[in-house]
Amino acid sequence: MRVSQLFTKTSKTLPADETSKNAQLLIQAGYIYKVMAGVYAFTPLGLRVLENIKQIVREEMNAISGQELIMSSLQKRSTWEETGRWDDEVVDIWFKSKLKDGTDVGFGWSHEEAIIEMMKQYITSYKDLPVNVYQFQTKLRNELRAKAGIMRGREFVMKDMYSCSINAEQHDKFYNDCIEAYKRVYDRLGIGDDTYVTFASGGAFTQFSHEFQTVCEAGEDIIYLGKNKEGKTVAVNEEVLDDKTLADLGLKREELEKVKSAEVGNIFNFGTQKSEDTDFTFTNEKGERQFVHLGSYGIGVTRVMGVIVEKFADEKGIVWPEAVAPATVYLTRLGTTPEVVQAAEDLYKELTSGGVSVLYDDRDEARAGEKFADADLMGIPYRVVISDKTMANNTLEIKARTSDTAEHISRPELMQKLAA
Amino acid sequence: MRVSQLFTKTSKTLPADETSKNAQLLIQAGYIYKVMAGVYAFTPLGLRVLENIKQIVREEMNAISGQELIMSSLQKRSTWEETGRWDDEVVDIWFKSKLKDGTDVGFGWSHEEAIIEMMKQYITSYKDLPVNVYQFQTKLRNELRAKAGIMRGREFVMKDMYSCSINAEQHDKFYNDCIEAYKRVYDRLGIGDDTYVTFASGGAFTQFSHEFQTVCEAGEDIIYLGKNKEGKTVAVNEEVLDDKTLADLGLKREELEKVKSAEVGNIFNFGTQKSEDTDFTFTNEKGERQFVHLGSYGIGVTRVMGVIVEKFADEKGIVWPEAVAPATVYLTRLGTTPEVVQAAEDLYKELTSGGVSVLYDDRDEARAGEKFADADLMGIPYRVVISDKTMANNTLEIKARTSDTAEHISRPELMQKLAA
Repeated sequence: MRVSQLFTKTSKTLPADETSKNAQLLIQAGYIYKVMAGVYAFTPLGLRVLENIKQIVREEMNAISGQELIMSSLQKRSTWEETGRWDDEVVDIWFKSKLKDGTDVGFGWSHEEAIIEMMKQYITSYKDLPVNVYQFQTKLRNELRAKAGIMRGREFVMKDMYSCSINAEQHDKFYNDCIEAYKRVYDRLGIGDDTYVTFASGGAFTQFSHEFQTVCEAGEDIIYLGKNKEGKTVAVNEEVLDDKTLADLGLKREELEKVKSAEVGNIFNFGTQKSEDTDFTFTNEKGERQFVHLGSYGIGVTRVMGVIVEKFADEKGIVWPEAVAPATVYLTRLGTTPEVVQAAEDLYKELTSGGVSVLYDDRDEARAGEKFADADLMGIPYRVVISDKTMANNTLEIKARTSDTAEHISRPELMQKLAA
Repeated sequence: MRVSQLFTKTSKTLPADETSKNAQLLIQAGYIYKVMAGVYAFTPLGLRVLENIKQIVREEMNAISGQELIMSSLQKRSTWEETGRWDDEVVDIWFKSKLKDGTDVGFGWSHEEAIIEMMKQYITSYKDLPVNVYQFQTKLRNELRAKAGIMRGREFVMKDMYSCSINAEQHDKFYNDCIEAYKRVYDRLGIGDDTYVTFASGGAFTQFSHEFQTVCEAGEDIIYLGKNKEGKTVAVNEEVLDDKTLADLGLKREELEKVKSAEVGNIFNFGTQKSEDTDFTFTNEKGERQFVHLGSYGIGVTRVMGVIVEKFADEKGIVWPEAVAPATVYLTRLGTTPEVVQAAEDLYKELTSGGVSVLYDDRDEARAGEKFADADLMGIPYRVVISDKTMANNTLEIKARTSDTAEHISRPELMQKLAA
């Protein structure tokens, strides 16, 4: 990718109508474009970050036997009436419209009821179980306010997975596999150390659900961190923090630490409650009809992108962890002599064909200061400078986004450092 | 992919509520699930086909300097009022809804006005041009009737590209590059021989637009094929077939062949008409404001998938071209002896690690006839059989989906045949 060919431009001025840091920085650095409050387009740079996040999630979901599919945005009224969730009094974030003949349709804000209706068609026997499916879906939610940038939008991308199991044992196995897979996801996304499996409110079937909460000032949630008797950190959502929860989890109220956090994932054990509501059954080995055990597992893909910006940004701009960055290297050419241009082009090719993704600042007119400021604002993990000066010394200058000091190293050393 | 782990099942009975061949076969073979008329979910098998098509389109759009981004489904009223296309009298396929505060929103059926509004923010100078961007977007269209399966849905995937150029010359260059890129796309998708660049109705700016029409009985269009004075085949949409068009294109009415066809792509030269309507300008080298030349270029991704099914299917089921098939090989294990199971597992691994995608029918209970029927219905390009009998002969049986006769070849020969 060449900077000269990006249609987006960085901006030094804060967007007037954004109060959240993530939206401000992502707009200034050219990752997103605001369509309306809570609705953003993703530019080529932003789409790369989104796809990097999705690919990490995809690999981990596949590794625990998740099968990717894609549902529809359009939803039938009848699908949601069975559980009472078509009603605007029950779910107040529906976008709804009508077909030409007056038939009501909704736009998917969740796909739980839709996946159950679909799976009822395929699952009839114990031989058909377990089934674990997931999708990356654009969800539409008619939020009253949308001021948190891409952390809570009216249109956003979510990975939602659903498990159908034969009994509690099979369900629990997958549920626990999923907890471990989610931990790997957040580790790979660079937020593992600050992301906690958090006890949150359950449903009809379980005392607790599990949220994945990332400590983050911009988060909308409050969680409490404490250590149980085994010395393990336990996180509890404020909504379930009462004496019973404290006793159940072996925590002492006075030892808890209160932090703001953002929910980046949640997993939910429905037991057989939802399949009872929707009459979702299978026939067991004895020919008896039984209810399917269901679980639901979400990761807010666009929200995670926002949380990463909020957590790591500094006064100069965004700081992407390497795994999600749109490029690993911001290759900065200083000067326009034929020699330096040729050397920069060669290095661009060498890095790219070596599997290193590069954002190459090939602009003639931009000054060094501008280029450095852009590299910082965009948050690319490494800045590599090639100039007449570095060429005279037969070195290259490399600086990590998170470091204040540059190193001068040889080209082979650079390749070795950056090769995965 | 193991057949035993697919949650979808093939079905011998035609779906009761589908009249189109593509929907019938795709449902029977387990590629799509019907949510409502004109709205389908794509199962893991179907999603693979869709992603294969998208990847081919993506590679060709990138090759002509297209930059991928993703716009939003939610649309502002004001974006579309400027050109008069918010009005239901003008565009009768809008799905619309309202935000909580009563603000109108629409759901993207096209993104022309939206991309112009976005690009106005980034393009101000001749230095910013050209810009060519594209997306794979889920379009929502409130079609009165939806009976053509995935060839015309209420929710479907489209690749839409937009070009912003400095003048007619720069525009024409890209427009022609795009025609060539589209030809490569349809060639790679296996429908190149039957797909014609077709003269269709233009707009305020041009006499003609260009459609890509694939000869197909299930198509909704009528085109005429003829030869011009140079002996080159020329295709004309019925809608523009008059004496002037015939004269302009050098065709004789009596020599034309009338065929049914499906529009799989279209490209449109707006000239400066749309930028005049929306006041989309840039400053040229002399500091003068000028209107941007615009083009729009669509490929119906889900429609192409439907057209491929319609065109190639035979009495046994779907026939996928290799480039779009969800797997290249349907590996059929017959028998359950430890030896044959081990050999099949080994072959599955060997093919997969050799880069050959395999759908492995590892079911113990299914009979040979069932497995063969499934392989045919699903349309996988090659069926490979491993059984006690083939093992005794130290061969494998391979049959192309389009052939009636099987060959017996050795394992190294098989690998050589299937390696790309």
